[in-house]
Amino acid sequence: MTTTLNSETLELDATRTVAERLQDMLAEDLAATEALLLERSKSPVAVIPDLSDYIVSAGGKRLRPIVTLAAARAVGNTGHGTHALAAAVEFIHTATLLHDDVVDNSDLRRGKKAAKKIWGNSASILVGDFLFARAFTLMVETGSLEILNILSSASSVIAEGEVRQLQATGKKDLAASDYMAIIEAKTAALFEAAARAGALSAGSEKYAESLAQFGRNLGLAFQIVDDALDYGGTTAIIGKQVGDDFREGKITLPVIIARQRASAEDKIFWDRALSVETQTAQDLSHAIHLIRASGAMEATAEAALDYLDLAKQALRHLPDNEWVRSLSDLADYCGERIN
Amino acid sequence: MTTTLNSETLELDATRTVAERLQDMLAEDLAATEALLLERSKSPVAVIPDLSDYIVSAGGKRLRPIVTLAAARAVGNTGHGTHALAAAVEFIHTATLLHDDVVDNSDLRRGKKAAKKIWGNSASILVGDFLFARAFTLMVETGSLEILNILSSASSVIAEGEVRQLQATGKKDLAASDYMAIIEAKTAALFEAAARAGALSAGSEKYAESLAQFGRNLGLAFQIVDDALDYGGTTAIIGKQVGDDFREGKITLPVIIARQRASAEDKIFWDRALSVETQTAQDLSHAIHLIRASGAMEATAEAALDYLDLAKQALRHLPDNEWVRSLSDLADYCGERIN
Repeated sequence: MTTTLNSETLELDATRTVAERLQDMLAEDLAATEALLLERSKSPVAVIPDLSDYIVSAGGKRLRPIVTLAAARAVGNTGHGTHALAAAVEFIHTATLLHDDVVDNSDLRRGKKAAKKIWGNSASILVGDFLFARAFTLMVETGSLEILNILSSASSVIAEGEVRQLQATGKKDLAASDYMAIIEAKTAALFEAAARAGALSAGSEKYAESLAQFGRNLGLAFQIVDDALDYGGTTAIIGKQVGDDFREGKITLPVIIARQRASAEDKIFWDRALSVETQTAQDLSHAIHLIRASGAMEATAEAALDYLDLAKQALRHLPDNEWVRSLSDLADYCGERIN
Repeated sequence: MTTTLNSETLELDATRTVAERLQDMLAEDLAATEALLLERSKSPVAVIPDLSDYIVSAGGKRLRPIVTLAAARAVGNTGHGTHALAAAVEFIHTATLLHDDVVDNSDLRRGKKAAKKIWGNSASILVGDFLFARAFTLMVETGSLEILNILSSASSVIAEGEVRQLQATGKKDLAASDYMAIIEAKTAALFEAAARAGALSAGSEKYAESLAQFGRNLGLAFQIVDDALDYGGTTAIIGKQVGDDFREGKITLPVIIARQRASAEDKIFWDRALSVETQTAQDLSHAIHLIRASGAMEATAEAALDYLDLAKQALRHLPDNEWVRSLSDLADYCGERIN
């Protein structure tokens, strides 16, 4: 029995991803964070913990808490403040997902039925509000007004990014710079805030800016990769239906580049296919073909790798230790996902 | 004053007298608060200030900022911290309204077209999130973690109340105690937090609990009255369509009492009419008739007056000054609205 378990562990060791290795290194911190996520989603109103446990436990990668905790470890020690912060960051992210699903009208989330398909739009909106409020109660426990300022500012920037994205839906000639402004706000701002506040929660002012730059660039790359996988993965791998963005008329980098490089004929295809009203069921596979044939997927991967380079450069300002190295590995891992 | 639909002019006069006196007394504080509401709803994403200015300026009574500011004045001096708090409280309230309109599917708000009818559900959800985030940034400027704790806790309680209300929709046999639990969470919690935090923002720990009890009971009475007006006012007076709650199947105190007192025949009416599916256009006027004939409106008014008495009793712990007296007048005014 013991032998079996050991060989299983060894087998797992061999195939462990960087994220899993980080999870091992952060096991204690993550356990404390998970306990807070569970405890603070409690409510006498049963649907609230039901719905939030459903989405909080729905196979999320805990990437934002991991960045928070590893940033803290890289520059100091963790304690209740850092754990509360990591849980708060995940609650903010979760609240955003719940509201996103209503805004995007998505049916799947993290490979499972979206919460709104089970509990309805209204409950998803209100439980999102609940988790957002609980995030701020958790942050009070860091004892730092500066951290509250960083995360509340990031939260308003996220909402701005979501509104920008809403307005860009179906805008076929969206510029790459507009796309970058959207993902900087809706995704990178929270990674940046998580890393900066993580450092501050461990008592380090000195490296907070470098870690913030790491978080920002990792977040940009992460979103570029995530958007690219919507044209290059399978449901099993990426945990969502391929082509979600395409079907919603959400314009992302692979499409922007492919459309820029398109022939006059292909431009006509893109303009029709990117309108939800005139899109047909066959358009997705042709869109994927054009994205690959034009080299847009490679160009997208290069853009992501450039941001990951910037993320790793920011880490060079930090003292060399196992946490800084693992954050650098995390950036590499993010780049590997797209290839 | 008589309890009829025809006392419109008298009610409006009473409104002007109390509101104008309080607004005069608080003129400087309210101007500072308004300036913050305008300034902090700014965003490079134009739809955000457009939508939030629309709802923030939509004739709201600023009752919550007034309670916040008057509570602070009653026990000390106001300054940027109190003004930031008052603006934060109004932003939280506004965010709740925006999400409420989506959840309730209301077409009118404060007598105007609901924001979601102009900008859509998605923008209303996201701008609500934006204002909620900005509320917390404002609160950081109070410099008080305790205030942030009070308001973030109140915000999660509000969301709990909204979920409870959602679940109670169409529940014809809703108990009065369930109704009270709903309005305590969705309305009284914010008034309580506003008054408590207002006192703290002026540096007074000593009277914070008494002011919190004032706020809580005022909030309960205010919501009871507001719900009662849905069966007893006109669009011109209360700024919303009469019968909104009825049409949405929202069960409030006048209905609960009328249904408890109903004959077997009238119970059949209530059970059919309170189901959105089986309700007819004529049911509202019969419901209003039954509410009046059964004395349910008077009983509802009495319940409100009881809470207003408790609110005024809480003020007796405070030193006598013009601010405490004006808070007491505010309670009286709230009671006059129903008659």
